[in-house]
Amino acid sequence: MLSKISIDTIRTLVMDSVERAKSGHPGTAMALAPAMYAYWQFTMYYNPADPFWPGRDRFILSGGHASILLYATVFLAGVKDVENGQVVDRPALTLEDLKNFRRFESRTPGHPEYGLTAGVEITTGPLGQGCSSAVGMALAGRWLATHYGRPGFDLFGYHVTSFCGDGDIMEGVSAEAASLAGHLKLGNLTWVYDSNRISIEGSTDVTFTENVAMRFESYGWQVLEVEDGNDVPAICEALKQGREETSRPTLIILRTVIGYGAPGKAGTASAHGEPLGREELLGARKAYGWPDDAPDFMVPDGVQEHFEELAGQRGRRAQAEWDRQFAAYCAQYPEEGDELRHIFAGTLPEGWERDLPVYPADEKGLASRQSSGEVLNAVASQFPWLVGGAADLAPSTKTLIRGARSVQAPSNMVQEGGGYDGRNMHFGVREHAMAAICNGLALSGLRPFCAGFLIFSDYMKPAIRLAALMHLPVIYVFTHDSIGVGEDGPTHQPIEQLAQFRAMPGLTMLRPADANEVVESWRVAMQHRAGPVALALTRQNLPTLDRTRYAPADEVARGGYVLADCEGEPEILLMASGSEVSLVVGAYERLMAEGVRARVVSMPSFDLFDGQDRAYRDAVLPPSVRRRVGVEMASGFGWDRYVGLDGVVMAMNSFGESGAAAELMAKFGFTVQAVYEQARQLLHPAAD
Amino acid sequence: MLSKISIDTIRTLVMDSVERAKSGHPGTAMALAPAMYAYWQFTMYYNPADPFWPGRDRFILSGGHASILLYATVFLAGVKDVENGQVVDRPALTLEDLKNFRRFESRTPGHPEYGLTAGVEITTGPLGQGCSSAVGMALAGRWLATHYGRPGFDLFGYHVTSFCGDGDIMEGVSAEAASLAGHLKLGNLTWVYDSNRISIEGSTDVTFTENVAMRFESYGWQVLEVEDGNDVPAICEALKQGREETSRPTLIILRTVIGYGAPGKAGTASAHGEPLGREELLGARKAYGWPDDAPDFMVPDGVQEHFEELAGQRGRRAQAEWDRQFAAYCAQYPEEGDELRHIFAGTLPEGWERDLPVYPADEKGLASRQSSGEVLNAVASQFPWLVGGAADLAPSTKTLIRGARSVQAPSNMVQEGGGYDGRNMHFGVREHAMAAICNGLALSGLRPFCAGFLIFSDYMKPAIRLAALMHLPVIYVFTHDSIGVGEDGPTHQPIEQLAQFRAMPGLTMLRPADANEVVESWRVAMQHRAGPVALALTRQNLPTLDRTRYAPADEVARGGYVLADCEGEPEILLMASGSEVSLVVGAYERLMAEGVRARVVSMPSFDLFDGQDRAYRDAVLPPSVRRRVGVEMASGFGWDRYVGLDGVVMAMNSFGESGAAAELMAKFGFTVQAVYEQARQLLHPAAD
Repeated sequence: MLSKISIDTIRTLVMDSVERAKSGHPGTAMALAPAMYAYWQFTMYYNPADPFWPGRDRFILSGGHASILLYATVFLAGVKDVENGQVVDRPALTLEDLKNFRRFESRTPGHPEYGLTAGVEITTGPLGQGCSSAVGMALAGRWLATHYGRPGFDLFGYHVTSFCGDGDIMEGVSAEAASLAGHLKLGNLTWVYDSNRISIEGSTDVTFTENVAMRFESYGWQVLEVEDGNDVPAICEALKQGREETSRPTLIILRTVIGYGAPGKAGTASAHGEPLGREELLGARKAYGWPDDAPDFMVPDGVQEHFEELAGQRGRRAQAEWDRQFAAYCAQYPEEGDELRHIFAGTLPEGWERDLPVYPADEKGLASRQSSGEVLNAVASQFPWLVGGAADLAPSTKTLIRGARSVQAPSNMVQEGGGYDGRNMHFGVREHAMAAICNGLALSGLRPFCAGFLIFSDYMKPAIRLAALMHLPVIYVFTHDSIGVGEDGPTHQPIEQLAQFRAMPGLTMLRPADANEVVESWRVAMQHRAGPVALALTRQNLPTLDRTRYAPADEVARGGYVLADCEGEPEILLMASGSEVSLVVGAYERLMAEGVRARVVSMPSFDLFDGQDRAYRDAVLPPSVRRRVGVEMASGFGWDRYVGLDGVVMAMNSFGESGAAAELMAKFGFTVQAVYEQARQLLHPAAD
Repeated sequence: MLSKISIDTIRTLVMDSVERAKSGHPGTAMALAPAMYAYWQFTMYYNPADPFWPGRDRFILSGGHASILLYATVFLAGVKDVENGQVVDRPALTLEDLKNFRRFESRTPGHPEYGLTAGVEITTGPLGQGCSSAVGMALAGRWLATHYGRPGFDLFGYHVTSFCGDGDIMEGVSAEAASLAGHLKLGNLTWVYDSNRISIEGSTDVTFTENVAMRFESYGWQVLEVEDGNDVPAICEALKQGREETSRPTLIILRTVIGYGAPGKAGTASAHGEPLGREELLGARKAYGWPDDAPDFMVPDGVQEHFEELAGQRGRRAQAEWDRQFAAYCAQYPEEGDELRHIFAGTLPEGWERDLPVYPADEKGLASRQSSGEVLNAVASQFPWLVGGAADLAPSTKTLIRGARSVQAPSNMVQEGGGYDGRNMHFGVREHAMAAICNGLALSGLRPFCAGFLIFSDYMKPAIRLAALMHLPVIYVFTHDSIGVGEDGPTHQPIEQLAQFRAMPGLTMLRPADANEVVESWRVAMQHRAGPVALALTRQNLPTLDRTRYAPADEVARGGYVLADCEGEPEILLMASGSEVSLVVGAYERLMAEGVRARVVSMPSFDLFDGQDRAYRDAVLPPSVRRRVGVEMASGFGWDRYVGLDGVVMAMNSFGESGAAAELMAKFGFTVQAVYEQARQLLHPAAD
């Protein structure tokens, strides 16, 4: 009975919160209340008193629009709050917070936000992302369990469970992630698919009639079906079977009725995205057996205690046992214990910079993808939990960790050797899932990187944005960063990609100019723990600048710096990033030889430069100097910030073409000569 | 025997072209030569003498990296060239063109480019796109056949065939598209899946072990397997079965050996993306039975004639019959014939603008998504082949064509009625496939639109970029275009999306300020046939400006225009787009009342404004006026182009938040008062 009352308490809190907010998504939350109850009360190992417990099961509400379901449960389960990264002795959410659902500056925003509300493991909302990132969390569990597992210890046997809806299942990103999860045989992963046959445009019959069960079987998943979304014992049994099947992921197809209980709206699209209205709400309460005079936000006696008795006690006991084990582990394996503490805290291992190379001046130089590969390997050798890979492009992106094994299910014997504790991920041609999975890895304490051609970052965009929103330290290694790609042509030559990343809040984009800027870019990336970092690297060779002649590369950390200068105030500023820096250096040398006072500014990162104080920025780009040239083999969009109304941006105004890189550069005006001429013209404009 | 010689001619041309180019992808092209031969010679209805024939079968090489396979076939089949949109009597490709493979300004670029090389139906390269757009082409065929079909006529029974590789099949976009194609029962679609078990990182065993056949069966496809990629009769039989199965799409899984014939590299990843090397090339020639002294680019006698005899003759006869039918059709159904001629030419029907509304001034106004919905319906009523829909958001994006049926397989009885000739597409929560399918619809002559929240344009990005690259007139209706979204919070509030579209070449982004700018934006969009157009529209209401007081809205076509002005040279320029225009108008009124000479510039489209001549741009934004304020509730990235070093951009410097839109706007500084204060500060800077 307390079971039914608890479920209906979730439902009424859902309805009341949405009604009060005058917006929100009640239907799915009402439908999933029994599954939520079953999972939290009878299945999940989660200690409400410590939402950071590393051994906890992970719960992901992939359909983030049903956020109120999670908030109501976090409230009822008494999850403790977090302040400045520490658990504090007060509830994460109170009834008052539910009353403030979707309000300005509340703890209960429209979609769950990681870092804002304790108990929320990941920001969700854009469909398909949560369940795909859950694959990363499950993989991280397997990685940690294998890499740090020792006889007699079971520290990372946690299970990852994601609730998904029709939208999540229709999205391509989840299809990619599910295929990879099946390949990796992630038996610690369960997706609960809320199949309610209703979407915003009406019945799913208008567009979604595939056989989902068969599809997931084709991926190698266990597929279970629960015919009645209100049948708690059946849901518990399916969740249990999901945990017991350790050699493949599990999909539980749960048939539910959207807006269950609402007399007129249950089972209809109108229960999805708007308040039910007072009449439907009262009708639903009646259907649940709620008293006629029940106040809004009623929490019947005993419900919170019931959550404490089941979910709370089980979680508490489990964490106590885990704490005991972890202490014994640290005593027996102090080095591994130290590493795990770094992983839990998100800090870097001692000496991670030890092997970073320094590159001597070299006219021929090397491609920045090449130097990046060397730097990555130098870091990886000192950083055991740096793990990543490419979307089937590792030989081109130079992102293989040498001598390391492949990340694979142990039963999958591959040529280079594999196991769950490998270092090299083979994501397949699944860029979007790659990025979503990296979010899950980062949320689990691993330090992930992933790689592809810069143009294919387009496929990853929604997941990268979530990394930025969640401040996750994922590193993106994007190579083939311009028309310098050459023969592969315009489908493979990025134009607008640098601009779109620079315009994205929270992401740091770096485009190093030579091998030593690559070293410093990686240094920035590794130390930057407050958000994702993207590196834009060349396919083609870049000269390694003579740093005895020009400024040292460590100023990369400031985003932009004076690379080469003149005596006194410059007459002209020449700016560029990445491969174009050597062009402006060439033009600078010619101008200086002719007696022009010129300055070269290397601008590897707009984001970092804009974060410097005004004095520094003005010192690098003196406001009084208005003759400015910005050069980049990409869309010039955004360069005007530094070039102003009186300068010139030399950039791409069209898509690229197929041909030898040098021919393309000549055609589109990226030569020393062209920069030089542009500068001369600014210095001595022809009379109009 | 001529069959084998022809196939091996394709293979040797492939090898020789890649060898000469010193880069390229020989392996897949060699492996697929028999399938290509089987398809072109025995299955496809395609007249090499008229690559524009509307009744032709469509061939899509989804793995565009194997472009040389298509080029070699276009050459051997003698496809005629096109100049200024007209077929001319010379070959589209000569042997010389193959020798220039991947060279600067050649007709044989690294990936096939639509519009550059006759015989190329679509630009491919980014994986998963070609086969997904093929779904749109097949749907267009069904739409045309149903809408324009009359007893005794079969004008649009064409079949669409896409060759795909492992990468295409791994991508999420193709999973979405395949699910929808199955739902729509597109029996005129065949995907030939080249399963060679090899990807760039090695064996597909490292990441791709799902059961592809079962997956496609789950989508409702017919799945056939051909065990030997060299077995031409078996391939022909499978292709035939694909055509004969008219009630569902067909997947043919073709087992091939990458780099077939190369003695050391066949079946290995090294045959994928680089020249084979002279030794392997000679070894392969030997395996094919080529004479030892065969010159490079040898085309044995009779091979081109053999293509003419089979593919050429069949296509010629088929088109002759089609031409006869079409003439009879036009005689019997002149109106429909006229419409079809518009469709084939890509022109607009007479009177399409007839019902466009004009909105009176209205302080309360309406959301631009709302006025857009009205305008869309006004256009649709006069434009029968304007077809589109949303990714399960039509009620929110206001993109339902009223009174029209749903696009469905005839056997699928849905509430609003459906059929292949419906107008309302239900794409499902499959944004990426939606965009790719619209590319296919546009390539087939329909005028497609698709809709979603602006934030979810991120999911569509790779396909939108291809629309821009191919100059396809797809219209994107993006609503919920700023933090004005309100309670749904930062996962649903676009920030960098406007910037990323403005930075993309070839796409025209419009963000109208009120209902009349919406009308003009749609007018621009419909008339713009040289590339895609995106509309950014609000969720929230916008006042309808009094156009007797301010400038008329038809200047939207110029991208930016003086909306409100002062006497003489302005002291300050206030600029904004979309919902922020009314803020700057409010600030303008206060400044003018205080005697400040201010000007308001409405900037609905950077792209269109930047396309105006310098005189116009300088007239709108006089270079001498440096006090400038740009206001937009999005990333300010790119606004500096108009604001300069001395002005101020009032924009979002972070992600948004969940809360009421008005509270968010106040918090982030988007109020009349804030704009007014910023302007005052520019006019009278406080002493530092």
